[in-house]
Amino acid sequence: MAQLVETRLINIMHFQTLIASKAARMVLAAPGKILSDFGLRTAHGAEAGLFSARASYIAGFASAANVLAGERYGIPIVGTMAHSFVQVHDDEMTAFENFARSRPDGVILLIDTYDTEAGARKVVQLAPKLKADGITIRGVRIDSGDLAAMAKKVRDILDAGGLKDVIILVSGGINEDVLETIVAAKAPIDGYGIGVNLDASIDAPSLDCAYKLQEYDGKPRRKLSEGKVTWPGSKQVWRSYGPSGHLSGDILSLENDTQPGDRLIAPVMRAGKRVAPAPTLAQIREHAARELARLPEPLRQLVKADEYPVHISGKLKALAAEMYARR
Amino acid sequence: MAQLVETRLINIMHFQTLIASKAARMVLAAPGKILSDFGLRTAHGAEAGLFSARASYIAGFASAANVLAGERYGIPIVGTMAHSFVQVHDDEMTAFENFARSRPDGVILLIDTYDTEAGARKVVQLAPKLKADGITIRGVRIDSGDLAAMAKKVRDILDAGGLKDVIILVSGGINEDVLETIVAAKAPIDGYGIGVNLDASIDAPSLDCAYKLQEYDGKPRRKLSEGKVTWPGSKQVWRSYGPSGHLSGDILSLENDTQPGDRLIAPVMRAGKRVAPAPTLAQIREHAARELARLPEPLRQLVKADEYPVHISGKLKALAAEMYARR
Repeated sequence: MAQLVETRLINIMHFQTLIASKAARMVLAAPGKILSDFGLRTAHGAEAGLFSARASYIAGFASAANVLAGERYGIPIVGTMAHSFVQVHDDEMTAFENFARSRPDGVILLIDTYDTEAGARKVVQLAPKLKADGITIRGVRIDSGDLAAMAKKVRDILDAGGLKDVIILVSGGINEDVLETIVAAKAPIDGYGIGVNLDASIDAPSLDCAYKLQEYDGKPRRKLSEGKVTWPGSKQVWRSYGPSGHLSGDILSLENDTQPGDRLIAPVMRAGKRVAPAPTLAQIREHAARELARLPEPLRQLVKADEYPVHISGKLKALAAEMYARR
Repeated sequence: MAQLVETRLINIMHFQTLIASKAARMVLAAPGKILSDFGLRTAHGAEAGLFSARASYIAGFASAANVLAGERYGIPIVGTMAHSFVQVHDDEMTAFENFARSRPDGVILLIDTYDTEAGARKVVQLAPKLKADGITIRGVRIDSGDLAAMAKKVRDILDAGGLKDVIILVSGGINEDVLETIVAAKAPIDGYGIGVNLDASIDAPSLDCAYKLQEYDGKPRRKLSEGKVTWPGSKQVWRSYGPSGHLSGDILSLENDTQPGDRLIAPVMRAGKRVAPAPTLAQIREHAARELARLPEPLRQLVKADEYPVHISGKLKALAAEMYARR
């Protein structure tokens, strides 16, 4: 039973850390843009979709196309019409109007089912009619083709039609590299729906980490398996910051071996009970934003940076050597 | 609501098809070997772990290290001791003996926590003592180092110690390419525990497929988005077989346009009810084995084969052209 609970906790931490890390890369690549989790369809199960919505929201995403995530966690729900909604209508204009009238709040129209530019012109044509009935079109979405180039054409059509406030969202194949390229090109795109590259973390679908027993009944333990040797004993991590407030390095030590820096590890449970109430999702999200801001610039880039300095304390090295000698 | 149910169904089909496909590649790469799903820890959530156990069992895996999958689906549960179990003991021999006595059925001892060859010698030493109490060691597991080379050394130690019936299982970094290499080298390995490469399908964590509306209210529909054009109308797929019984090609046609071959698509629900009882998991597994045996040899290889021939019928091409003309 303990083993089962342990596996379950590891599984949840592993996956949410993975998705939050992936989402953080996207947030850093597209500052100020509206990012939304569109990935439920291709997540590894409904639970993975739910966790992805939560983890990406923590990392700075604005919303998720996931109703349950909205209900359960209070994450803002974003929804746009499906291509199938357009397709069940005999013409696209009727589909747009029916959609706007049935969901009049924050209307986002999907304009690429047949011809994207023609779709944008229909939005211009429809807007005054809806306006007369008190319905405002919030945005349009493009889900295919050259997104940056098409967004520019659509922006021109919307602006010429007096719809300067209508935002442009895009989706389809978005990842952090695409975001960086599109943002650098200053394409007139306000928001991004991100699917499989977020929820399945396509290029890095797993964290290469594991949890190992290092102390038991007050005694240090150490695994010596080939290529998998671990540092023994119960530990603390000490983090230091540079003059600008950015992280400058960590020291890994035995638990009671005081080192310079701030302690990163604190007890969260004692005797099966939390030592403090759980933080709210909003607090966790603020914490993530603060920590991302404290990352040194090389670690904020998408390309692999120099190693972040992690020093092993002298006493920890000595204990490891001693345990190796008497194995 | 319909949209939610649809997304959920797509999500489940998408993921289980992904994992079953990945598992099938492993089954084809290691004929006759015992393959077990060890991936719960790094699956994208507990549900993904459960679905992975089911999908890999369908594809021909023998078992899963997932108690819930055993309880819910009747999949054989496999379990081996954890490194932490060995580590909480002051010596490895005591850990082995305690484990065997507490779980005397199908005992598999993990021998690589400190020194794998020494671990194998302890198993030889322990076996007669357990035997005297009616406990048989079923196997040993190696989870680190050069698995093929170490298995050979361990096999020699076990054989010399009279333990020819004790099987060798390995785990750690196993995927279908590793399986093919180790099997070709005729390493004395009987079974494989496969984790993250199965449950997270590391190199292909998503199927690039989608579900599109092609007919509504009896009328064909077609999406024309740039790069995402679909074939319109309700369809049938007709499959042909060669003289050896292997698949030779498919024809994609409109639903009522009879073509040579066997029909692949059949209704499973009408008016919200199944038209026939669901097959059992055993039946699904047998079906998968039969279909894998019918794959042409190039498609059974791990490397990308020539395209499997899929022909589009004349009437379907004509409908697509007609709809494009009157868009």
